[in-house]
Amino acid sequence: MHRLGGSVVSSPDASSTSATKGETVADTVRVVEHYADILVLRHSSDGAARVASNFSKAPVINAGDGSHEHPSQTLCDLYTLYREKKSINNLTVYISGDLKNGRTVHSLVYGLALFGAHILFGPAQGLELPQHVQLRLSEEFPGGQVGIPATHGHAQAADLPIDVVYQTPSGAHQLALLPGVSGQIDIRQQLDQIDVFYMTRFQRERSPAGSQTTYPVVDRAFLNKPKFKGTSVLHPLPRVDELGYDLDSDPRGAYFRQAAYGVPVRMALLAGLLGIEKVLDAEPPAAKYRVYSQSLGIRCGNDRCITNSDSERRHLKCQFELLGRRQMTLRCVYCDHEVVPAVVGNKKTKAYDFLSTALGQPKNLESVVFFKDENEARAAGFERGHVAMGATQRSSTAGRV
Amino acid sequence: MHRLGGSVVSSPDASSTSATKGETVADTVRVVEHYADILVLRHSSDGAARVASNFSKAPVINAGDGSHEHPSQTLCDLYTLYREKKSINNLTVYISGDLKNGRTVHSLVYGLALFGAHILFGPAQGLELPQHVQLRLSEEFPGGQVGIPATHGHAQAADLPIDVVYQTPSGAHQLALLPGVSGQIDIRQQLDQIDVFYMTRFQRERSPAGSQTTYPVVDRAFLNKPKFKGTSVLHPLPRVDELGYDLDSDPRGAYFRQAAYGVPVRMALLAGLLGIEKVLDAEPPAAKYRVYSQSLGIRCGNDRCITNSDSERRHLKCQFELLGRRQMTLRCVYCDHEVVPAVVGNKKTKAYDFLSTALGQPKNLESVVFFKDENEARAAGFERGHVAMGATQRSSTAGRV
Amino acid sequence: MHRLGGSVVSSPDASSTSATKGETVADTVRVVEHYADILVLRHSSDGAARVASNFSKAPVINAGDGSHEHPSQTLCDLYTLYREKKSINNLTVYISGDLKNGRTVHSLVYGLALFGAHILFGPAQGLELPQHVQLRLSEEFPGGQVGIPATHGHAQAADLPIDVVYQTPSGAHQLALLPGVSGQIDIRQQLDQIDVFYMTRFQRERSPAGSQTTYPVVDRAFLNKPKFKGTSVLHPLPRVDELGYDLDSDPRGAYFRQAAYGVPVRMALLAGLLGIEKVLDAEPPAAKYRVYSQSLGIRCGNDRCITNSDSERRHLKCQFELLGRRQMTLRCVYCDHEVVPAVVGNKKTKAYDFLSTALGQPKNLESVVFFKDENEARAAGFERGHVAMGATQRSSTAGRV
Repeated sequence: MHRLGGSVVSSPDASSTSATKGETVADTVRVVEHYADILVLRHSSDGAARVASNFSKAPVINAGDGSHEHPSQTLCDLYTLYREKKSINNLTVYISGDLKNGRTVHSLVYGLALFGAHILFGPAQGLELPQHVQLRLSEEFPGGQVGIPATHGHAQAADLPIDVVYQTPSGAHQLALLPGVSGQIDIRQQLDQIDVFYMTRFQRERSPAGSQTTYPVVDRAFLNKPKFKGTSVLHPLPRVDELGYDLDSDPRGAYFRQAAYGVPVRMALLAGLLGIEKVLDAEPPAAKYRVYSQSLGIRCGNDRCITNSDSERRHLKCQFELLGRRQMTLRCVYCDHEVVPAVVGNKKTKAYDFLSTALGQPKNLESVVFFKDENEARAAGFERGHVAMGATQRSSTAGRV
Repeated sequence: MHRLGGSVVSSPDASSTSATKGETVADTVRVVEHYADILVLRHSSDGAARVASNFSKAPVINAGDGSHEHPSQTLCDLYTLYREKKSINNLTVYISGDLKNGRTVHSLVYGLALFGAHILFGPAQGLELPQHVQLRLSEEFPGGQVGIPATHGHAQAADLPIDVVYQTPSGAHQLALLPGVSGQIDIRQQLDQIDVFYMTRFQRERSPAGSQTTYPVVDRAFLNKPKFKGTSVLHPLPRVDELGYDLDSDPRGAYFRQAAYGVPVRMALLAGLLGIEKVLDAEPPAAKYRVYSQSLGIRCGNDRCITNSDSERRHLKCQFELLGRRQMTLRCVYCDHEVVPAVVGNKKTKAYDFLSTALGQPKNLESVVFFKDENEARAAGFERGHVAMGATQRSSTAGRV
Repeated sequence: MHRLGGSVVSSPDASSTSATKGETVADTVRVVEHYADILVLRHSSDGAARVASNFSKAPVINAGDGSHEHPSQTLCDLYTLYREKKSINNLTVYISGDLKNGRTVHSLVYGLALFGAHILFGPAQGLELPQHVQLRLSEEFPGGQVGIPATHGHAQAADLPIDVVYQTPSGAHQLALLPGVSGQIDIRQQLDQIDVFYMTRFQRERSPAGSQTTYPVVDRAFLNKPKFKGTSVLHPLPRVDELGYDLDSDPRGAYFRQAAYGVPVRMALLAGLLGIEKVLDAEPPAAKYRVYSQSLGIRCGNDRCITNSDSERRHLKCQFELLGRRQMTLRCVYCDHEVVPAVVGNKKTKAYDFLSTALGQPKNLESVVFFKDENEARAAGFERGHVAMGATQRSSTAGRV
């Protein structure tokens, strides 16, 4: 912003803000939008940037929200790939480390898929890519193939809608593997060529204390084989020990160049949002799913979601996208976590019934209430009875707008 | 300041400043005045801004000092009233909530009185307007009427100099009521029309821990009656729960517009102080009272006063305005709290005597020392004896410059 | 920087930076150098600025590193002396207070010596100037005389290479005395005239808790004698109680003027480093000593040295200047502390031997490893044997480049 000639009012320490007085993100945003032409928010809760964006008249940039996403970092990452490799299409990108909590990864994978890269996952044990990210990747970025070895215990392949994603004919842009890594990266035998390593830092502050995860390390020894001669190593920084200092002076270590590209990329983003340069699409992409929102019933199950924070839950209704799956699935619009309600109720008759795939999708989302289970429905004053969904049978495109 | 084209050096976190190394406000100001053309100070001690102003060559803006005052917020509040209601004169403003610790109220009441508004107080139980603010309002802003119901225990009406303020003939600009609110606002029956609600946040961080005050809430239900159809609701923000979120989308909720007006109002204030725009009077108002200051004797009784802070008391002498009341009363020039000395001494003879109304006001404030009580006088080496005040009998204007 | 028309990105609170995520100074610098044209670093570890400078492409200003140095403050101090006294040459500057931890002093003494001032030391008991600073002052700034009273226990005069420094004929520019001050400044009897007092604040946060040092105080009473009529009192600020508030209104109190000079002096420094104004030498002074650096063997003995910090020791090799003394002495290039190895080894033969003055200086610093003692050598896999230093006998200029 300074390089663009603008000024910045920043509040790096949350404890100096009104948030410590119990102020909600929604309120903060409606005050500071008058002081600034653009807002950049970094927040500890998943989905905080979406809340800010919903309430702000000024554009909001998500500079990292909890362990959810970090899209502006992804712009830097993609631009770095483009500068280092001339093209992202058909690059094979192996993502190693903490894929569970690392928010940069949760944005990067979609970006890579959009540009036609192949993705390989090398998570530390217990730090695998969250299932909802895997699912979204396979459902909404269908230009690729996802391979999940059955040996990898946590990857409940049976839960995946692989009939839709696996068999997309448009090309093999994505190859998602979840190799059996227990602190050791044994991906070396599986691949002839890896173009780019994207190491992520172990998110110490977001993992349970005392967790004993052995963490994969990338250093010169790891990159010793001839096939890694032209491999680039990226890292969102800061690093601790997962990235060898011996790569600092190695031309393959691209992470400080990557940090440098952060300046022009963020200048472009700011200039685009402020209307100085025409670098962004005029319109955001159209909504893919119908949105369900009721003040009672099921809530997002992610503890770190902004809708579950002490301050925001005072005023913020949950909102979910109704995914077009055989099993009724709701995706939180704030944090992207998924919940599967077991019970549906009718707001007028106060009757509830168990959801079954035979019921199909509800026609009118205003009249129904989804519940996690029978107890939640009863606690809300509903009684067992007939609930008409008022809809045709579910089809594979149901749920789409 | 940014919108005016200037730059800002800010220090939002006091723990990053030299204050943590024991530096006084007076010293900090004498360093930073060389780095800036204007100083804006927010501080946890009552009266800190006055100390800064006394020592700084650059203009100082008080951005809130302890629970004392917050005058720049009052400028925003008054401007909001003007924009919402076209005029402040004859508006009836009901101030509800924490009137004891809420520094915005302690500045607002004087501003409202100056512009001819009627003020109604609806404090939460135990959070009534401080007595010294009530007294100043009635003594120095005499264009109104103050009604104190005898049923309200804490309002010791007998202590008030109501002969001066109550009976001013110039007009009914102020109507200060202190209704019996115990967590419930029953002001509704007392008034036909309230033009503006000014809700204040419960100052959690400034109230004794574990205090169980029930706090009045303003929301749509509260404003349900037809007479509140055109009522505006203001709030200095941040809010917690005392202001219903259902007012956010209600046109009567003016608090986010109020926050927005903060930008042009503060631009005007800065421009005026920097001499860019002629928006301020060239001269501050003349002093109303004689000032008393001795390095020994009575001190300000307000624990949160800057003169009682660990750092400032090393170098800062207490200073008091000598109020023209029947009973000798000293008002701290820093925090506005009042003290009533029981004993007066003569600096030369080291004699002290009890103050009595018969003594009148001292002619020469340099030669006398006031003490809280006999013990304080004795501890300072004074002995009981005759003290000549050297003045005529007290009159109602005594103490005025 | 603002006055020069530039912008500033600041990070006043270390807990808001990536340092709390375990990032090294070297990494931080290699990220932020892309965001700024110049870096200003204040850090809690001795030598942090040197690390930053080694890794940054942008110029680095040391704004205080641990208790090591504070050179930009020295520029302000020297400029203040120049403005107050018209010349620094032949000024007698008495430095009083905490000379051990006060980093401003560790830079000031060299500056004073360069400009030909006489320096007198009045440390509080136990807070004497570190020995390595005394030694450097006498060895590298030879244009003066250093007088160390033998009565002062800690000043181990026998350790000093006084044959070189004491007897330099070029002039009496420095007169370093270490009077026997036990919380009392008895320097008054020793001198006819003191031109400038440079008081330093007791570095409470850097001294052992519970230390009972009585601290010298400078106030009007202290400056009561006629010979102090024209004495200037300087202080780097913030002060606590070691400097009387009664000097604030005394023309001899120059410390707020000194603070004010900080603005133009730092403007000049920034302008010079950015190439806007030609105020700096194009080239830094040539290296005086050979540099020794091995990844095994002796380490810097200063606990607060950046090479001993948890984060930096992961990647940072110790580096030492080989001082030209009779006894082999290594000076840490980061924090300037000195270590004296007892043992030397040969990297190839893995033999070690005790150092003796007869061995002389090693010819090839690549082939030798210095160890603190025999245990350290053995722990590193070395065995007692013959080590050829491959050098001529030590001369007084050995070690010089």
